[in-house]
Order: sequence, then structure tokens, then C-alpha cells
Amino acid sequence: MTVGIASGGVTTPQGFRAAGVSAGIKANGGLDLALLVSETPATAAAVFTINRAQAAPVLVSREHLTRSGGVARAVIVNSGCANACTGDEGLQIANTMAADTARLVGCPVEHVLVASTGVIGVALPLDKIRSGLPAALRALGANQGAAAARAIMTTDPFPKEAAARTTIGGRDASVGGMAKGSGMIEPMMATMLAFITTDAAVPQPLLDRALRDAVHDTFNAITVDGECSTNDTVMLLANGASGATVDAGQYDAFVGALRGVCLELALGIVRGGEGATKLVTVTVTGAASPEEARRAAKAIANSPLVKTAIHGGDPNWGRLIAVAGRAGVEFDLGRAAVTIGSTVLFEAGKPHDDNAPRAAEYLKGKEIAVAVDLGAGRATSTVWTCDLSAEYVRINADYRT
Amino acid sequence: MTVGIASGGVTTPQGFRAAGVSAGIKANGGLDLALLVSETPATAAAVFTINRAQAAPVLVSREHLTRSGGVARAVIVNSGCANACTGDEGLQIANTMAADTARLVGCPVEHVLVASTGVIGVALPLDKIRSGLPAALRALGANQGAAAARAIMTTDPFPKEAAARTTIGGRDASVGGMAKGSGMIEPMMATMLAFITTDAAVPQPLLDRALRDAVHDTFNAITVDGECSTNDTVMLLANGASGATVDAGQYDAFVGALRGVCLELALGIVRGGEGATKLVTVTVTGAASPEEARRAAKAIANSPLVKTAIHGGDPNWGRLIAVAGRAGVEFDLGRAAVTIGSTVLFEAGKPHDDNAPRAAEYLKGKEIAVAVDLGAGRATSTVWTCDLSAEYVRINADYRT
Repeated sequence: MTVGIASGGVTTPQGFRAAGVSAGIKANGGLDLALLVSETPATAAAVFTINRAQAAPVLVSREHLTRSGGVARAVIVNSGCANACTGDEGLQIANTMAADTARLVGCPVEHVLVASTGVIGVALPLDKIRSGLPAALRALGANQGAAAARAIMTTDPFPKEAAARTTIGGRDASVGGMAKGSGMIEPMMATMLAFITTDAAVPQPLLDRALRDAVHDTFNAITVDGECSTNDTVMLLANGASGATVDAGQYDAFVGALRGVCLELALGIVRGGEGATKLVTVTVTGAASPEEARRAAKAIANSPLVKTAIHGGDPNWGRLIAVAGRAGVEFDLGRAAVTIGSTVLFEAGKPHDDNAPRAAEYLKGKEIAVAVDLGAGRATSTVWTCDLSAEYVRINADYRT
Repeated sequence: MTVGIASGGVTTPQGFRAAGVSAGIKANGGLDLALLVSETPATAAAVFTINRAQAAPVLVSREHLTRSGGVARAVIVNSGCANACTGDEGLQIANTMAADTARLVGCPVEHVLVASTGVIGVALPLDKIRSGLPAALRALGANQGAAAARAIMTTDPFPKEAAARTTIGGRDASVGGMAKGSGMIEPMMATMLAFITTDAAVPQPLLDRALRDAVHDTFNAITVDGECSTNDTVMLLANGASGATVDAGQYDAFVGALRGVCLELALGIVRGGEGATKLVTVTVTGAASPEEARRAAKAIANSPLVKTAIHGGDPNWGRLIAVAGRAGVEFDLGRAAVTIGSTVLFEAGKPHDDNAPRAAEYLKGKEIAVAVDLGAGRATSTVWTCDLSAEYVRINADYRT
């Protein structure tokens, strides 16, 4: 088994074509409609937001996956409008998007998945989707993954694409993906929008398990601002075009490649988090259980005081301890430790403030690692976040104006 | 029973004197040592942070209240240094602060309570406390409550004082208080620092119950940034100097006055929250239980997307729905409603976007009310928070530099 992370995206695996066009949904005329098509029906799996206010496209995609038994030919995605909290009318629009796409692609409607991202609570202009769809179909190409990745962006400062190659049963296969997301990012069992393809053949139950496994330590381990959106979705399509087939024996190879792609995309989201200037890796060790490790790491990664201190380059380890202490996990102050980069600042109940200048120098970098040992056990967890800057406030105070 | 909120503070009740002096702990030479003394031993109750990293003064005050059976003569408080995460040495310093105060005031050491606030993890300079204490004793006065309220401030933009008068069993009695707090504010069963006095006589179990009752809907219902500090403390001293005695029959009158003082102080903390420009009242209705109502209200009040939208004057009700949906409470999108001021923006599954201009006009004000109906039951909860501004980031990125 070899896994390599390569440049590429959703059209890196064989038998997938994509397009990104401008349908006029975004006021600035940018790309806002993406279409992804598999040449043959692909096995499909997805994870969706657990937000109780689920957007219309989430409801439609979930229903289609159930009706099709996990098969998809096409994914239609618009940016600029989330089609969330839009009532029965929004549901009709999402259904019509799927039906129009199915007619153009030539497949049953339940083989089309739908996703939307943008402002919540605004009606999605169906006429613009309808006039954009034929252009998207004409633009479809095996070299158009990058355009699709741009067409799903909202406040993202750059597109997120990744691909991995692996060998399964002696055959080369690949996994490719694209994602969007910058604010309202703390996926809960699912995430923002991400679309992943593979040309391996993977039976549906195994594909489903692989997606959940890969998402747990990637998309579900990032946070920008502790917010879980109404539209979070990760979809994975496996069309078998490489001739490689994944069974239980090749599961680890496949999930390794899949996890690599998911991690690249997830880190891209954090690097491009609203207002972000630094990528922060938060590792919690010494936890009583994996769940408590994850809970403490998320609490630290979501702390505005930790995130502003890192933004300001201040090795204020006391804030890390204070968050660990309030995270609702077992915590022993006398055994706890805080490390910034490789510099220990607090250990066995005592500060090492003489180390603060070295940590302050380290914090000038763009990639920051902080670690907290809870002193309560052996479990660990790593999550990724970004710093909190005045730019985050500016972006979100002015989002709709 | 009459309750009136009046200007005043910890020395408004009879038989209390206070002082605020500069002991040189703050680098800028500001007031940083406060002393509060009751002429006679007072019945005392306190609630402390539930953060697992409890500061030395929290440990010492808790132990003294246990040893004394709920009696106190004096409270010694410093700002500029939290004496938290400072190990055995920090504990010795807190104990010495109490012992020195007891000797000067002339009372048993367990009748002295201690509190500290400021940077975490830095050693508290005992020599400065010791040289400041005699000056504080000399400065004690029944008209020095305002100086004490200034001496406990850190990043607070203004001091917080309040008082209330009530009649108990035909006798006039009063309750007074002071508080500090601006950042690291989401009290969990306790809060920042607040010191409350009353000249009513209140038996200890009743005093304890009254404090918990009053704190639940005041200090525990506010949040600035979702952070719970290592030093959160509310102390209440009742010295009986008014001749009024609270028994079960007068409990409601007393707790009404106490709640009034706590609410004034708590709202003062939110108004003076780090970077705050608006006071925001978040009301959740239609919840399945009071706990779920509180959880949803806290989630909304802590949401950076809601707080930045309010900062920017954007009636972005979709963010309120999105937070309610992820708050882990029962929620029915089809019955939910969002109101900003008195303007309904979302109801019965449908937006009222024609109302957005009116809500935008309302959001230009300094006192903002938002309400979300979860459509799931009859329970309600109100919490208070402030908006999130770029100034919050500036304050906390530069806190120690």
C-alpha cells in the first residue's frame, strides 16, 4: 500500500467530470454553480449537519440517498444562497434543481445530490439555477475540477482541493476532493461542503464506514468559530472506473488515502478561516478518555481568549489552563502541563515563566502548535483551529451589507 | 415590602467600612488593594468558580468559610495578579495575606476572606501586599466604597456598584455590592469577583440559599466571551447592624433586594464587557425545559456570528436559528420564531424579510433585545451579553504586552 498526497481535485479519479459556471446568484458575478458528474452510476455516501435547522438541499440529498440505496450520478451545488430556513418553497426549489439536473444528465432524479451554501433565509432564485444548468453541462470536463472548487466558495479566501493516489489489490486508484468553508465552522458529525470522488469500487456499507472514519479525525476535528451550519455536508462518490475494488482487506489502504484527502481539505478550511492569520494545532494529552480529550481540545480551540492571545503572539499559557479547567473534563492542576511549540511553560503545578520569551518568539510563526496535558489519564486528541483577529469581526459584522 | 434600587455600594449598609489603595501591584500605579471590614462578625456566604483550576485565594476563602461556619469580619482583595496556577507558593501567599489582615483588623484568621484578580500564573508580590495593608487599614471609611470598587478593577472600563433598600419586619435594611469583570466572563455557578453586604441579620443557611437564588438569574445569566475564570467569586456578608432580621417570612423581600443588587452589578459587567458597544438581552421561549431554555440562550449569547452581526447592525436572523438548531435542545423549525426588538423576522417556517429594514434601524441602538421561540414547549430563559467588536480582539491580543 502506498498513499501519496498529490495535487488534484474531484476530477483526478477517472470517470469524473466537473464544471464551475456563473449563474448570476452572487451579486459580484463570480462562479456560483458547480456540477459534478460520474460517467457511470457511483456508489455514494454522505454525512450531513446535525443542526436541527437543516437546509432544504440537505433534506433532499438525504432522501435521494435513501431512495437510491446509496447510488449517485451527479451533484449540483450553488453558492451565494444557502436555501436554508426557506420553508416548503425552498424544498420545492431544491427538488426542482435535482429534477432539472437529472433530465440534463440523463439519470433518475434520486441519483442527483444537491447542496447549497451562502446566506441563510433568503429565497434561492430558481430561474438563475435553470439558466445556469445548461452552461454547466456544456462546461463539464475532466480538467474542470478547479473551476468547480471556485464555484462553491463564499467567504473563502482560496479554493480547497486535494487528491491522493493509492494501490488497491495491485491496481492504482485515486481519491480527489474539494471543499468550501471559512466561517460558521465547527462541524458536528459532518461539515461545511466537501465533495470527494474515487475511481475505486467500494461496496456501499464499506464506503459509508470509510467516510465516517475519515471525517472523524479531519473535518470533525476542526473549528474556526464554534458554529455548526445548517448546510454542512460531505459527499463521497465511488465509481470504480480504475478497476480497483475495495473489500475488507484493502479497507485500510483506501481509508488512508481518503483520510489524507479529507485532512488536506479540512486544514485548507482552517487556513482560510475568516480572518485567520495562523494555523493552530491543539493537542490534548493525559485525558481520562478519548471523548474528554476531544472535548478539552475543542474547548481550547474555540476559546476567544486563547485565539486572541495566539493572534497577539502572547504565550499566555494561563488561558489554556483556565479553559482546560472549565471544559468539564477530569483535570489535575498538580500534574497538568502546557507546551507552546516545544517550550514547556507550566508543569507539575508551577510556571516556567523564564521560558516565555522563547515561546513568544515561536508565536511569531504562521503554524502554531499548543499542547495541554490534563494529568488525568492516557487519552489524546488533536484538533485544528485558527487565530481570532479583528478581521473576523469585520467580515461578520458586514456580511450582508 | 418595598425594594428600591439606589446609588451606593458595599458601605451603604450600616456597619461596613471599605478602602481602596495603591500597593504597587499594577504597573500603572492604579488602585489595586481593596479592604472591606464589618464592625462586627457578619454571617457570610459565597459561591466560587467551578473551574477545576481554582486559584489560591479561592481555596483559602472556601476553607475559611468552612472553618468559621460561615462567619467573616474582613475581605482583602487585590487586582493586577490572579494568584492562580501558582502552586504551593501561591497558596502560602494567599494564607499570609489573610493572616496579616486578621492581625491588623483584630480577628481570627478564618474570619478573613481573600480574593485576587488579574494575570494568571504570575507570582503575587507579597511584599507589596504587606506594605499596602496598613495604608488600607488607615483609609477604611464608611464613604470609601467607591475607592474599593475601583481597586478591584482590571480591564473594566468603569467600576460597578449597586445598592437596594428594603423593609424587613418593619425595619429598614439595605443591601450593597461591588463587582469587577470585563473579559473571561461566563460564570459557571459563580462569577468574577463580587462583594455584597447587608445590614440585615440573616441566619447562615438562609443567607446561603438567598445568594444562590439571586446569583442564578443574574451573575449566572450573563456572558461576555463564554470563558469561566479561575478566580470567580461572589461573597455576601450580613452583619445585622440595621436591627432587621430575615427569617423564612421575610425571605422574599430580602432575596428581592439581593437579586436587584446582583442584577445591577451583573449588567454592569456586561455593559463594560471587553470591547462591548451594546448590551444584548437574549430571551428564549418555547423550550422543552428551563435547562434547555438556558442552554439555547447561552449558545446564542456566546455565538461569535450572532455577536458580530449585532455589532454590525445586521438583522441576520438566520444566524440565531442556526445556533438554536445546534444548541443540543429540542427545536421545531416549522414552529420556531425570531424577533429582534419587536419585529418578527422568521415565523412558522417562513422569513419576513420585508421587516428587515425596521430591525436594522432598531439595531442602531445601544440596548438590544433578541428573542427566539424554539417551538418545542413552554419554558423560557433570559441571559445578557454584549456584542463582539474588533476592540475585544485588540484588548486580548495585547493583554500582557
